[in-house]
Formats: sequence, C-alpha cells, structure tokens
Amino acid sequence: MQTKYVLDEADVPRQWYNIAADLPSPPLPPLHPGTGEPIGPEMLAPLFPMELIKQEVSQERWVDIPDPVRDAYMLWRPSPLYRALRLEKALDTPAKIFYKYEGVSPTGSHKPNTAVAQAYYNKAEGITRLTTETGAGQWGSALSFACNLFGLECKVYMVRISFEQKPYRRSMMTTWGANVIPSPSDQTEAGRTVLASTPETPGSLGIAISEAVEEAASRDDTKYSLGSVLNHVLLHQTVIGLETEKQMALADAEPDVVIGCFGGGSNFAGLAFPYLRQKFDGKDIRVVAVEPLACPTLTKGKYAYDFGDTIGMTPLLPMHTLGHQFVPAAIHSGGLRYHGAAPLASQLVNDGWIEAEAYTQVDCFDAATLFAREEGIIPAPESSHAVKSAVAHALAAKEEGAEKTILFNLSGHGHFDMSAYDAYFAGSLTDYQLSRADVDGNLSSIAAFPDVPA
Amino acid sequence: MQTKYVLDEADVPRQWYNIAADLPSPPLPPLHPGTGEPIGPEMLAPLFPMELIKQEVSQERWVDIPDPVRDAYMLWRPSPLYRALRLEKALDTPAKIFYKYEGVSPTGSHKPNTAVAQAYYNKAEGITRLTTETGAGQWGSALSFACNLFGLECKVYMVRISFEQKPYRRSMMTTWGANVIPSPSDQTEAGRTVLASTPETPGSLGIAISEAVEEAASRDDTKYSLGSVLNHVLLHQTVIGLETEKQMALADAEPDVVIGCFGGGSNFAGLAFPYLRQKFDGKDIRVVAVEPLACPTLTKGKYAYDFGDTIGMTPLLPMHTLGHQFVPAAIHSGGLRYHGAAPLASQLVNDGWIEAEAYTQVDCFDAATLFAREEGIIPAPESSHAVKSAVAHALAAKEEGAEKTILFNLSGHGHFDMSAYDAYFAGSLTDYQLSRADVDGNLSSIAAFPDVPA
Repeated sequence: MQTKYVLDEADVPRQWYNIAADLPSPPLPPLHPGTGEPIGPEMLAPLFPMELIKQEVSQERWVDIPDPVRDAYMLWRPSPLYRALRLEKALDTPAKIFYKYEGVSPTGSHKPNTAVAQAYYNKAEGITRLTTETGAGQWGSALSFACNLFGLECKVYMVRISFEQKPYRRSMMTTWGANVIPSPSDQTEAGRTVLASTPETPGSLGIAISEAVEEAASRDDTKYSLGSVLNHVLLHQTVIGLETEKQMALADAEPDVVIGCFGGGSNFAGLAFPYLRQKFDGKDIRVVAVEPLACPTLTKGKYAYDFGDTIGMTPLLPMHTLGHQFVPAAIHSGGLRYHGAAPLASQLVNDGWIEAEAYTQVDCFDAATLFAREEGIIPAPESSHAVKSAVAHALAAKEEGAEKTILFNLSGHGHFDMSAYDAYFAGSLTDYQLSRADVDGNLSSIAAFPDVPA
Repeated sequence: MQTKYVLDEADVPRQWYNIAADLPSPPLPPLHPGTGEPIGPEMLAPLFPMELIKQEVSQERWVDIPDPVRDAYMLWRPSPLYRALRLEKALDTPAKIFYKYEGVSPTGSHKPNTAVAQAYYNKAEGITRLTTETGAGQWGSALSFACNLFGLECKVYMVRISFEQKPYRRSMMTTWGANVIPSPSDQTEAGRTVLASTPETPGSLGIAISEAVEEAASRDDTKYSLGSVLNHVLLHQTVIGLETEKQMALADAEPDVVIGCFGGGSNFAGLAFPYLRQKFDGKDIRVVAVEPLACPTLTKGKYAYDFGDTIGMTPLLPMHTLGHQFVPAAIHSGGLRYHGAAPLASQLVNDGWIEAEAYTQVDCFDAATLFAREEGIIPAPESSHAVKSAVAHALAAKEEGAEKTILFNLSGHGHFDMSAYDAYFAGSLTDYQLSRADVDGNLSSIAAFPDVPA
C-alpha cells in the first residue's frame, strides 16, 4: 500500500481559492471602533500594500498566484500527502487516515505560504522594509525567510520571554538576515511606555504587535505583515487544500472528515476552505477546527465585534472571541494562544458549516507521541491538536465499525519545541481548561461593542 | 525551470549496491590486533547479527532490501533531488548545481537509511535490545527511531557533555522511546573505571563506544549497532545514490563532479558509490570527499592499519587515520570528528578514484549561510562542508567558463545545531587547522602496527 502521494511542480496551484465568492451568507465588514461604520481601504493603506487590501475585500473566486511567488513555492511545494498506515494499524481502526504535511517548508510550517506572497506584493509596490511581531517564532521565521528571498529588510519584534527562552528560532531568523529585537523595546513609543511602567515585563504578543504597527505606520518605506486571521492570509494558505484535493484523487479517496488545528485560523482554512467549497456544493463532509481547552475561542467564545489585537489598535472584527484582553495560559502551543479567530472561519462556524472541538494539551501530547512513534514525524504542539482529533475520529469510527476517511493538516514539525516534549515526558504539563465563568468574566469587557447582525 | 525532481514510492530501490563487487583492487581484510591475522565472522558475532556480518564480507553486487525495511523507507523516501537555481544565480556561475536532500527523514539526516536495516536484521535474528553510542545525537536519534519501528529496546550512551549541552536531540530520542544515559555511566565496567579516576569527565565518543560494546557483548539479548565506517553501513546508504541516478535522468543531466562531506564515510559513500560504479566503467566523473581541516583524515592522515575506536577494542582496520588516540578540536561538525575513515572509501582514495578536500569551519558556515539564504534549507554543520565544496567548484567553473554539472549530498538539516550558527554570527568560531607536525606526532602511536600491503 502506498504511504505518500507526491505531485510534480506543475501541480503547484496557479491560483488561490477565495472562499468569499462562495459564502452562503455575505461576509460582514470590519467596523471603525470610533464611528461603528464599515472601514474603507484608506484605513488599511498605511499598513498594507494595495494589492493585499484588494485581496482582503475581493469577491473573485480565483486569484492568480504571481510567477515569482509560485517560483518561491517551488523551494518546498508541492508538500506531500501521507497515508498514516502505521497509525491506523496501531489504532486498529477501519478508518483511513491521511495527513497533509506542511513541515517540509524551510521554516517547518505552513506560514511561508503567505509570507512569500506578502513579501512579493510589498516589494512590487516599492516597499523596502517589513515589520512584524512573533511569539514563539514560527511566523517571524517565515517572514524572515520570505523577505530574504525578495530582498526586503525584515524587522521582527519578538516577545521578550520567547527571545530569551527560545533562542533557536531567533537564530533561524538571523540566518535569513532578519533583525530580531526583544519586545518591549526602546525603539517605539509603545515599547518605551511599557518599559517605563514595567521595566521587567516579559512582553506579550499584544505589545509586540503595537510596536511593529507603530513603526510601519510611521515610515513610508515600511509596511506591516500579519501571519493569520485576515482574509488575504487565509486566501494564500489555500494552496494546501488545492494540492490535497489532487493528492486525494491520486489515492482514490475522499475525506469524510477534514481536520485542522485552529489558532488564528490560517492553516485550518488552508486545508479546509477548498473542501468547504465541496460541502457548499452538497458533498457530505464534516469540517472540524481543533483548539486548546486553555483558549477555547470557537467552542466557548462569543461571536461578536472585537479588536484583533490586545491593545485595541485594529478595526473591530466580526469573530469568535474570548475578549481582546484575555491572556491565555502558558500552553506550549504558542500559535494557538489567540483571543480571536479569523472572521471568515468564525462566520462559517456560526452558520454551522464548521464544527469545533477542544482538547487539553496533555491529551494532544499523548496523541503526538503516539503519532511520532508510528509515523516518525514529531508534530509541532499546535499540530498535535489536529493529530488528537484525527485519533479521536479514528477511534470513533472503530467503535461504529465505519470505514471513515479522515484527513488532517499536520501544519508543522516540533524540532524547535522539544522542550515542550521534555515537559510532557517529565509529567510537568498542566491541563489548563478555561471555565465558563472565566470566559464570561472576560467577555464583559466587550459588552458595549456593536452586535453582530443576526 | 524545474527546482525539484521527485520520484514515486515505486522508485525506492529494491536492492542496495555493493561496491565490493566492482572494486578495481581487492578489498583488504580487518586484522586481529593480537595475531595480525585476518579476522573471521566469529569475532564479530557477539556484536552483530549474522546477516549483517555476511553483508560486511559480501562480494555480491546487489543485495536485496527486505520488504519491511523498504516499507520503513517509505516513511520518507524517495528523498528529493533539487536544482539549486537561486544559488547558481547568486554565484553567477555557468555551472548547474544539484543536491540530494536527506534531511527529509524523521531524524533529519541520512542516518536512518542504515538504522532501519540494522534494527530489522537484529529483530529477525531474535535480538530484543540494541546499544549504541552517540555524540551530538544524529546517530542515536536514527537508531532510536528505527528500534521503535521494529519493536526493539534501544539504549543510547550519549557523551555526557552533549547530553547536557544538546538536550533536544536527547528529547527526540526519548520521544521515540529510547533509554538515553550520559556516558561515562556507572552501568558498565568501562564507565565505572573512567568515573573512578576522573569523576568530572565530560566523556568522549571513545568511552561511549566502549560502554555500548561492553553491554552488548555481555548480554545474549543485546547487540551493538554502528552508524558509519563499516561496509554494511555504507551498503545501506547506497539508496541515496541509486535514487539520485534516476532523478538526474529526469533532469536530463549527468554530474561532472559528485561531492559528499566525509566523517566516517557513510553519507559520502551513499551518494558516491553508485557514481563510482559509472567511473569504473569509464565515465569521466570527479568524486570528492570533503572533510574539516580540524580533522583532515583523508588529506593528511596515513593509510595504515589502526583501531576503529579510541580505546582499542575493535579489529585493526585498513584505513586513512590520524591515529586512534587523536582527539579532534571541538568543531561544530560532531559527525566529522573521527580519527579514521571507512576502509572501502580509504582504499578508493588511496587508489586515486576519490579526491579529498578540506576546509575550515568558518569557510563552511559562510557557504552554509549563503545556501540557507538562497535555497531556504539550513544545512547541518557536517553537510556545510559539501556545500562549501560545491560552491568552490561552481566558482572554479565560472573562472574557466565551463558548464560543469555539480552534484552534492545535503546529508541533513541544522535544526538541532542552531547554537553553532549563533557562534558563527557572533564571530566566535575558531578556524582550527591541524598542522603536519601535529598529525605526525599522533601517528607515531601506530608506527608499530602492521603495514597496509602496497
């Protein structure tokens, strides 16, 4: 039996799939926090190049991938689709388990799919520098890699505690020529303000975003780049699902369940949106987003208007949220510690097209270790949530005696997260679970925000 | 233009190529250190299963790959062949540069190619446990992974200083279920002896080998496994070159130069031996082994009989050596810090079929950083030697205006070696070079050993 389904470079998609064209209900606009009115492109123009702003609001079903972006994709795409034959056997399940593996990119995750596109469009519009924030470093690595390919300077504000505790992601960014500085820094007004009041702060993603946005907004040669949540980011990630559709055809299989882990929503959307298109057309597919019980945005949050960042600098986005001031517990899945969710995904959850599940990190590391021992690849802590869900669905299929076909996105490897595995094996991981009362307490802070229309 | 040449699983080789069948001069036997006589299989039987001992002395050109080993290979093989289009452009060279990438294996290097074969043959002969040593952890990771696949216990003696300084390779081995202990340990006579005299010792590969061998020799259920140097190890690695031949045909290209980094010789042989077969048949190919100037075994060592290990427990092997008591400087290429060389490769160097080059580690990190910025992949420090040589040959081709085709083995990624890149960027790497006088001083210790026949 076949283990891998590989494609030729000719099969790398030539267009991204824009789900906005096929949404069963029209997408909701972001709102200006002061006026409560829908925002126009001019509010985004200081931060993003015009082509990305156009993609953000585009209703075209297919968006051409520029040749230089596609050439950059060739450095690692098409990524492989695997059949997890050994895992199936270990679980003694009648289910077939397939996974798309995005860890083959130079940075080890799906993030470069959008990073190279964003770097390209900025370069094309004469921008010479990009700023961004990074927590554990996955997104910062991807943008560093992409900026280097297109000859852009890259400045990464890295949350100070990660800067100190995860030096190897920082080394990776340095290898690709990026300028990585710990946040808060003395280089921005936002950073200086925080440092003045709390000089020993470990930093946070919210502060790092403020610093990166402030620098981009104040310099004509510089724009800002975001690694998830926004429509254009999700658009770029659809290469994952478009390739997978071809590979599943090679395997002569069609998924009954499509699974992705969910933080901001980008790797999930990358695999799921092309399959949601099939589901809109009537195909019987369950589409499952998997999040941590420590940050249960989709399963326990509110579908409401809220800020995208912690400090409140962005427009109000219509999304599932735990409240923009919510600070998730220090789980090892840094990429899933986000209070909000991509608006496009939120709407589809709200309308019943996407299901959501949540697990503790210990359950996810259990599944990830089983996976590593059967399939070889050591999953990133984020991706372990998708692994856990796939295992759960495979065991349910066994219970039912159903020959289900399960497909999930293994969004990255864990080579830079081995300290998390150490903690797991040492038995020192905490099973954080956010209670209903805690969620409601946080949500009270956005009670006065505009309602999402029914 | 195409960047990658991928094969289907059907193209994973069904046989390994045994170069012993085609050697222009007959291979020299290992000798018993006491009697000076060629050793028989009985001397190896306490340490290795009979099938591997047979492979060690086989003269058959093709050796069948057992189905379970080939199935394990499917977890990551065939590995991709890349054309380094961006690197070519950056060097402004008329040369075409191709590289085979072995970093796609679960452990991130070529080592599992032999580890899964060794685990399989041991399992087939009723062995339930394997011991081995590891320095930085590449080989220990590979054997841990392989033992887990075949249901064997794995015990890895890891050099104490690496155990403490490189915890993430250790975490990786633990993830695959291996028992990793710092060496010297109190679990063997060899370890206890060392600890009694030098309780604070950082350990060494020589001591770790002694511990692993002692444990294997003293238990019926346990054998020992070695990751390089021996004939059967090189045999298993030939899947690299056999796949590459097919991929180069897809690219409609034939190499003028074939390059691999050289420590014990296994990744080099894996790519080079199938091409040496073509060279024996009259094809005009330069075959180049690349080593560190800090450990210049092939370029400055003596072709002589010497122990394979530091302490003197092995048979005498006919090989290029710097003397078995030579301790290389602490360069970051842990896998190239070996005093000897695979006998098969040594003989071919001695007979003029293989050329050898040596570079400083700073030169190699220069090349590796250029490579990472152009091609995305961050090379392992060992593999950076092959990158450096490929760049040098590409620049020489530019000088000559020659359209050379250069092929090298990128044996692994550097995800667990980022501290080496940190040191490089901090300017704190030492350009170790071993002098002629130092080499001669070390070699005096083996002056009384038997001569290699002319």
